[in-house]
Amino acid sequence: MHDTTTADLLARRARLLGPAYRLFYEEPFHPVRGEGVWLYDAKGTPWLDAYNNVVPLGHARPEVVEAIARQAAVLNTHTRYLHEGILDYAERLLATMPAELGHATFTCTGSEANDLAMRIATAHTGGTGLIVTRWAYHGVTSAIACASPSLGQYVRIGDNVRLVDAPTGGDAETGKRFADGVRAAIADLQAHGLKPAALLVDTVFSSDGVFTAPAGFLREAVDAIHAAGGVFIADEVQPGFGRTGEAFWGFLRHGVLPDIVTMGKPMGNGHPVAGLTVRPEVMQAFGQASRYFNTFGGNPVSMAAASAVLDVIQQNDLQANALRVGHYLREKLAALGQHYAIVGEVRGAGLFVGLELVADRATRAPATAQAAKVVNGLRQRQVLLSATGPNANVLKIRPPLVFERAHADLLVDRLDEVLGTL
Amino acid sequence: MHDTTTADLLARRARLLGPAYRLFYEEPFHPVRGEGVWLYDAKGTPWLDAYNNVVPLGHARPEVVEAIARQAAVLNTHTRYLHEGILDYAERLLATMPAELGHATFTCTGSEANDLAMRIATAHTGGTGLIVTRWAYHGVTSAIACASPSLGQYVRIGDNVRLVDAPTGGDAETGKRFADGVRAAIADLQAHGLKPAALLVDTVFSSDGVFTAPAGFLREAVDAIHAAGGVFIADEVQPGFGRTGEAFWGFLRHGVLPDIVTMGKPMGNGHPVAGLTVRPEVMQAFGQASRYFNTFGGNPVSMAAASAVLDVIQQNDLQANALRVGHYLREKLAALGQHYAIVGEVRGAGLFVGLELVADRATRAPATAQAAKVVNGLRQRQVLLSATGPNANVLKIRPPLVFERAHADLLVDRLDEVLGTL
Repeated sequence: MHDTTTADLLARRARLLGPAYRLFYEEPFHPVRGEGVWLYDAKGTPWLDAYNNVVPLGHARPEVVEAIARQAAVLNTHTRYLHEGILDYAERLLATMPAELGHATFTCTGSEANDLAMRIATAHTGGTGLIVTRWAYHGVTSAIACASPSLGQYVRIGDNVRLVDAPTGGDAETGKRFADGVRAAIADLQAHGLKPAALLVDTVFSSDGVFTAPAGFLREAVDAIHAAGGVFIADEVQPGFGRTGEAFWGFLRHGVLPDIVTMGKPMGNGHPVAGLTVRPEVMQAFGQASRYFNTFGGNPVSMAAASAVLDVIQQNDLQANALRVGHYLREKLAALGQHYAIVGEVRGAGLFVGLELVADRATRAPATAQAAKVVNGLRQRQVLLSATGPNANVLKIRPPLVFERAHADLLVDRLDEVLGTL
Repeated sequence: MHDTTTADLLARRARLLGPAYRLFYEEPFHPVRGEGVWLYDAKGTPWLDAYNNVVPLGHARPEVVEAIARQAAVLNTHTRYLHEGILDYAERLLATMPAELGHATFTCTGSEANDLAMRIATAHTGGTGLIVTRWAYHGVTSAIACASPSLGQYVRIGDNVRLVDAPTGGDAETGKRFADGVRAAIADLQAHGLKPAALLVDTVFSSDGVFTAPAGFLREAVDAIHAAGGVFIADEVQPGFGRTGEAFWGFLRHGVLPDIVTMGKPMGNGHPVAGLTVRPEVMQAFGQASRYFNTFGGNPVSMAAASAVLDVIQQNDLQANALRVGHYLREKLAALGQHYAIVGEVRGAGLFVGLELVADRATRAPATAQAAKVVNGLRQRQVLLSATGPNANVLKIRPPLVFERAHADLLVDRLDEVLGTL
């Protein structure tokens, strides 16, 4: 039974928003205020947010709120006029990457960034073939939804799209197996008369179940797509901006140089800003033939928000915090495995953590139903996270980067409780 | 010769943003502050903004800045949790439309809204055929750029897309001619084995050259697409939110009921918010099979911005102002035709005005080069506007809705000066 407020909100959602809007949890959550790693309900109860990567600096971060308000009160306009904001931010953003990535382009969402990346890749290569992982998620535009199998069976995978197995195993052969898949996909595209345009991967493979080890496993696959004349697009919408702890961008952990890097979610701490960086020679064909104008993309307010986010990450060294607290959290999660046979692999880098739940450690059979119980059980204990992977049996832990050890302790204590009830 | 600051900014743009970014004007404009209908350069000189439909309430409107800052300081989260903001706004938005349009969905950009509209139309109809006008602009995603011929020759029009002539003439037969084109496009789609999914039009035909008369001319074409089993998508990204003066939405001027209405630019007075409304029965197939989650779409801050925009438009009756001042402006522009043979048709509704410039009134030969001179001449006189249409010979005048008669006077005086120099 939902309480009166919840029941009312659910009825209004069904009536006003319709059937395509979905909620988390058996009992939906209704926050009214946020601060740091905490969300608060109407009663003032704090909820630990171990899931929201859109607010890396924590909820309602004052520096970002002030940056937005200050710029919005002065000027908000578009990129067909000159403005320093976009140039100052582009310069700072590009400085976080290898020098080869020389140009930046701004959109409003990660979906738009990936969609544009494909347009650029097609212009550069003359091909349309796109390789993604078997349970990838890259966005919701028509073109990118067709390359996002994790959206489910209702999305028809594009004729130009090939799916490869995610880089599982975490062993010395992971990279070779992944590259074998990419090479087979390239061959299949070519056999169908399609020229490979791009290999597009989320560099932490979040929706596939979080695969981050061993660092470096991407190299052979990147070489393979380059050898076939395609480009490598690193989707940093989820891992980017220091979350992995080991590097500011997920691709840097792997020692590879992308042709295009897309980014979004954490970039404005909730403000709708996203974009991509690109090697100038890869941008040339698209840029010479065409223009790209995104009405809101790169506007002064969005750039002020994004700049404030970079300030806070860099001044507070949140990347180092992600490394430190992420390591601590994964150790504590692994220790739970001594008490609960359901605990499988603990994966991840920094504060992007996947905890696999298995019905059997030998067969690695997924504990899908139990994972849903754990997610909802934690929700009953005021801890917010979700599950991922093709079998939805991998707890996805992806808190704000200001997450501290005490928060990790609380999360693991509550998880311990819930696992004890299974 | 550019001044030092401009030359420096241009060099940085070329280096940091690359070739896909384009600027307005021979001598780019560099605003540093905005207020009402005015933009200010670094010297404090005011420039009359007669072009920016993204800030219907005027630049840096305090009510919107405050709404954004207030909500951002409290909570910004996503639609997988419950929140009143999206429901309150959806209710208000839907109340501005016929009751048949029952559901709202939120995105960040108009491109995303049109892209999603096509996904919904395809799910509902089972078809993929899309009919747009010959010089249409609907957005920049892969799927929608392929249906935006005004982006230029480098965009390959999709195999599923058919182009029809814009509704020119402004006479009693305009609607029939337009519908004849739509019927021919339907037949051609069917002849190629493609089922028509949608007729998608900007209801003021902005990029085609601004065609608004006679009100009602859309009816026969809408009947035609319905008879063929397709849906009618009204792209209100430009005309929506009261700009046409005669109605809050462009489609209402024509007395037609869209199946989907898309919107964007003015919705948040510069904040990146966009969306669509849809007849529930048209949403059913998409919504039953699928979900739509846009990370930033419909977040509490975006909804607060959009809600403040509705407040100000309604409390200040900016729609009535658009009607009154738009009428006044068009009369003054028409009067210029007594002195300058280059002045052709004066078109538009409310504060969406197109002034056609012709080399010859009898043949209506476009005065393309002169139109560019006029746009740049007005820029030299601190008046901002642009040109549109396949021949770029139609001055596009689309100021903030707070534009007053004195601003119209200033615009026409400056235009009079520039026309005198040709």
